[in-house]
Amino acid sequence: MSPEELKAYRKSFPSKADVLAKTPDPAVRQMLKRLDEIGVETVFDRFDAQKAHCGYGLEGTCCRICNMGPCSVTTKSPRGVCGADADVIVARNILRWVAAGVASHGARGREVLLALKAAAEGRLDRPIRGVDKTRAVAKSFGLDVDNKSIEQLAGEIADILLEDFSRAVPGIHRTLQALAPPERIALWQKLDILPIGAYHEVFEALHRTGTGTDGDWENLMKQLLRCGLAFAWTSVLGSSIGMDILFGPPKRDTISANLGALDPDYVNIAIHGHSPVLPMTIVEAGDDPEFQQLARDAGAKGIRFFGICCSGLSSLYRHGGISPLANAVGAELVLGTGAIDLWVADVQDVYPGIMEVAKCFHTRVVTTSDSCRLPGAEHIAFDHQHSNLAEARELARTIVTLGIRQYPLRHAANVFVPRQQMAAEIGFSVENIASAFGGLGKLLEKLRSGQIRGVINLVGCNNPKVLYEKTVSDIADGLLAADILILTNGCASFPLLKLGFCNAEARVKAGAGLRSVLDEFALPPALHMGECLDNARASGLFRALADLAGQPIKAMPFAFASPEWSNEKGVGAALGFRLMGISSFHCVPAPIGGSAAVSRFFYEDSEALLGGKMVVELNPQRLVQRIVEDLDRRRQNLAGVA
Amino acid sequence: MSPEELKAYRKSFPSKADVLAKTPDPAVRQMLKRLDEIGVETVFDRFDAQKAHCGYGLEGTCCRICNMGPCSVTTKSPRGVCGADADVIVARNILRWVAAGVASHGARGREVLLALKAAAEGRLDRPIRGVDKTRAVAKSFGLDVDNKSIEQLAGEIADILLEDFSRAVPGIHRTLQALAPPERIALWQKLDILPIGAYHEVFEALHRTGTGTDGDWENLMKQLLRCGLAFAWTSVLGSSIGMDILFGPPKRDTISANLGALDPDYVNIAIHGHSPVLPMTIVEAGDDPEFQQLARDAGAKGIRFFGICCSGLSSLYRHGGISPLANAVGAELVLGTGAIDLWVADVQDVYPGIMEVAKCFHTRVVTTSDSCRLPGAEHIAFDHQHSNLAEARELARTIVTLGIRQYPLRHAANVFVPRQQMAAEIGFSVENIASAFGGLGKLLEKLRSGQIRGVINLVGCNNPKVLYEKTVSDIADGLLAADILILTNGCASFPLLKLGFCNAEARVKAGAGLRSVLDEFALPPALHMGECLDNARASGLFRALADLAGQPIKAMPFAFASPEWSNEKGVGAALGFRLMGISSFHCVPAPIGGSAAVSRFFYEDSEALLGGKMVVELNPQRLVQRIVEDLDRRRQNLAGVA
Repeated sequence: MSPEELKAYRKSFPSKADVLAKTPDPAVRQMLKRLDEIGVETVFDRFDAQKAHCGYGLEGTCCRICNMGPCSVTTKSPRGVCGADADVIVARNILRWVAAGVASHGARGREVLLALKAAAEGRLDRPIRGVDKTRAVAKSFGLDVDNKSIEQLAGEIADILLEDFSRAVPGIHRTLQALAPPERIALWQKLDILPIGAYHEVFEALHRTGTGTDGDWENLMKQLLRCGLAFAWTSVLGSSIGMDILFGPPKRDTISANLGALDPDYVNIAIHGHSPVLPMTIVEAGDDPEFQQLARDAGAKGIRFFGICCSGLSSLYRHGGISPLANAVGAELVLGTGAIDLWVADVQDVYPGIMEVAKCFHTRVVTTSDSCRLPGAEHIAFDHQHSNLAEARELARTIVTLGIRQYPLRHAANVFVPRQQMAAEIGFSVENIASAFGGLGKLLEKLRSGQIRGVINLVGCNNPKVLYEKTVSDIADGLLAADILILTNGCASFPLLKLGFCNAEARVKAGAGLRSVLDEFALPPALHMGECLDNARASGLFRALADLAGQPIKAMPFAFASPEWSNEKGVGAALGFRLMGISSFHCVPAPIGGSAAVSRFFYEDSEALLGGKMVVELNPQRLVQRIVEDLDRRRQNLAGVA
Repeated sequence: MSPEELKAYRKSFPSKADVLAKTPDPAVRQMLKRLDEIGVETVFDRFDAQKAHCGYGLEGTCCRICNMGPCSVTTKSPRGVCGADADVIVARNILRWVAAGVASHGARGREVLLALKAAAEGRLDRPIRGVDKTRAVAKSFGLDVDNKSIEQLAGEIADILLEDFSRAVPGIHRTLQALAPPERIALWQKLDILPIGAYHEVFEALHRTGTGTDGDWENLMKQLLRCGLAFAWTSVLGSSIGMDILFGPPKRDTISANLGALDPDYVNIAIHGHSPVLPMTIVEAGDDPEFQQLARDAGAKGIRFFGICCSGLSSLYRHGGISPLANAVGAELVLGTGAIDLWVADVQDVYPGIMEVAKCFHTRVVTTSDSCRLPGAEHIAFDHQHSNLAEARELARTIVTLGIRQYPLRHAANVFVPRQQMAAEIGFSVENIASAFGGLGKLLEKLRSGQIRGVINLVGCNNPKVLYEKTVSDIADGLLAADILILTNGCASFPLLKLGFCNAEARVKAGAGLRSVLDEFALPPALHMGECLDNARASGLFRALADLAGQPIKAMPFAFASPEWSNEKGVGAALGFRLMGISSFHCVPAPIGGSAAVSRFFYEDSEALLGGKMVVELNPQRLVQRIVEDLDRRRQNLAGVA
């Protein structure tokens, strides 16, 4: 970045006042005001307090990987103490982010696989619900589907997926080899970026970013690509397969989103985080008539569950009856309603700040993973060794009991619940999208005809560097008007759920072409596919359509956007799609601006290398334009285009 | 740290002028002047250019683990955007360092284990030289020693050690269980810090330090301890076992250290880094009469090898005939002699800055690992998948040939070699130290009698934050005067090698008690045990003496010091000893000063928890005092003390 660009970037950061004025969900505005009035701090206050942000950090040119520093790249000091220049420093920093992303998605995937293995081997009393998925995946892995039970197959699949996590002796990454497009495998082999396993590539990324190891930004980028593949094929796809096999496939449903879904007459339990094993067990426990009775005994009408961030979303589309309330950045606002009795937090995007808000109310917080504790929270959790995995049901029952006990302690005077709520369709999958459009062939036809100009996966976290939820919803508006069908999941999907994009009524937002298709099939313009790991479903749909068209994915009018992203995982998510040949679009840059070489690699060269590059535009409207241009260029490959 | 302490810390950093005036090795001074004259930049210039160092970085209170930041902790902004406070931010940062250390030492250990496995299975033409070690370790692991060949046993040991790397499904860490003191295993179990495997704990450390995962500094410290055990028992001990089995045990020898050992009449090849498989093969190739003849044909008297940092040291005590010249910080000075024809760099502490110096001379640089490339260097290396491991010998021969070809290109006018050299005894091991003292019992007797007041492992990297090599040598002087026997290895051992501490003449430096012992056995006061992974030998000696005394290690007068440390690995190395119950002593603090809680954990509470704490004193004399006090306190447990 030039000094002017850095200045403009910093200047583009909104203030809390900007958010209050412009964020599109009135419930968010009301809660922000409410918390302001009662003197409770949120993400937006803390973001303002952190201004002006350190330029070295924003550009990636601060190096803190050894104790000779910290070093930073300036005109006076163009190299760190060891001699690393801006290219190496920026490359090392961003590689560590991608590695951390592999570990984050991977860690919760591993928990699912341990649970799946335990269930398959009869050590965990939980049925294998994804029977069709088990058979399909087993076939892909070449297992003897005809002569083995579902449990046997599920156990063997868990073992293969865990092997792809943990391989130390170089060998074939079995998930990737079995399930990736041959065209891509050939490319990745040519680029020498095939991963050994998820654990190994993370380990190696840390190794080569250590002092005096990799001194070549290009070689560091090669490891970044390897980590991207480990991210996509183990941390995301491996985890997703594990979840679908253990918990069963998504089910389409219509639910109610936003704070208005909170009824103060019920015991209200929020599920926050990403790791589904205990959340699924908790929402199932809530069905028990014994607990329903206990809740009534406590003076409530019953028990209701609410989703914050991703654990909520993944329980939602499998178990049903859960209302999604807020993404990670909005969690404090939900706590501020004073209407939540128990807050169950597992891992990732559980900001420590929530404890300060919970303290102001009767809300009890429970942490459920050894990986995440919060001072002041109860800890009812799987331990580090998962030695108590089989006790999942007892843990879940203890947790639900806590929620019921907390209900009578609620102070009605402290409860403030905005009325907004929105009906939203959820639970889309590759399989049910195909049938929703009367077959994948029909959907492809609509793409070919141009009625659907392209398909985008519009996802990602939130980031106070852009206008909260407005960036995503503005982009969604622009895309729909341009006849682009939206797939969505995770934190970015919350504004789409809350503001009606996942409701068939929102067809009016679509351009004439897209609208005619949505009218024909009575579908909403944003198809909600779940939580952030469900990027696997979007890429599965892209793959299926490309195969049907007889084209490589990169030749299809598909795009990935995470406009407001902020997690380290977010770099890997976008990279995973670029590795498939799809460009990624964002309103927040990664901290790579301090290296012209690394910036060129992300923003330009990866197009020729992979078929997809990273595109960043601070302005959402401009980003929409770039997406449309990209999709139109790719459309030229589709037969039947006028 | 208080603002005053931070100011004093920054003010304590020496300048290049200070180093020129005070570093104890005249050869270093001469080379620094020489490079200054010819306008070549070194670590010391770049360190000066980096002043004043960012206080957030020095104290660990800058957070860069997500794209909502960078955040830093100030009075105005006591929490990051997510709500993480100084305790959480500092804890996350230091945990990531420890994890990176596990990965660094681990990655090269894994390479050795892959080579060992290949050799055992006949895929790599290299004998298993450590026959006794194989049998001893096999027994510890409960293998059938009587009915299996050395190759079979070595292969099974490699598999067990690799399993301890890669386990994803929780289970027993076999190396730790087989080889750690039962007293410690019980403690670690009680603290719930037993590691699953090295890969896993690194992965988990990255996971829980991601946005909104672990929000509890104490829980983060628990993972830090787990990583410390993975570091000690897999990355260090597992790697060390693999090396001793594959390459055989250390051999005592007397070698010549320092730049004066460079003879311009020879083809001079420097070996720099940490990963021993290719370096060992290269120095063996150098013995080939064909190459000796080729060197003579090129006009040289023969081929000589020189050690930079650790790869040199580990080849040195097994193959012999290699002169150690400099640690990582001194590498540029060696290149500045213009007398090195080929510079073979593998991984870790190969500062990118060396390329700028090499460019000024005829010296060719070769990189030999996929993990480390340097723009401008030749790359003749094992690939990422180690698919060419069996070609080690051909790679080595190509590399040596390059060195010979480079010799005639040397410009005599550019050669500047200081005359300093020093005879040094090297190659000490647990086994040969025992026999050197006429048996371990005799050594324990000397400890009991107080003639030897204590034993210290004096090791670690270098850091321009303290006076280069003076800090270590001043501390060595102080310790010897106080009758403390020194074990040493790695980068810190270079000043001890060069300045005569590893020469029996240096007995004069010892106090009367220690001197009488050294005189009796004709030993130098600093026993050189090898490269940085050879911390495993020092802890092995500590264990053996403690067992003989019938005491836990923590009750013995043992200490660990890495006064000038700078690598991320350095945090793990010290932590590994604290986990054994031994305190660690340093002149450079870790970046934890921004958290009172984390500082207390390192500096105070870990004493009660583990038996050893971290002690930092910027002043070397004061550090010696603290070491003596610590050892005297521990001596009270030894029977026979007056």
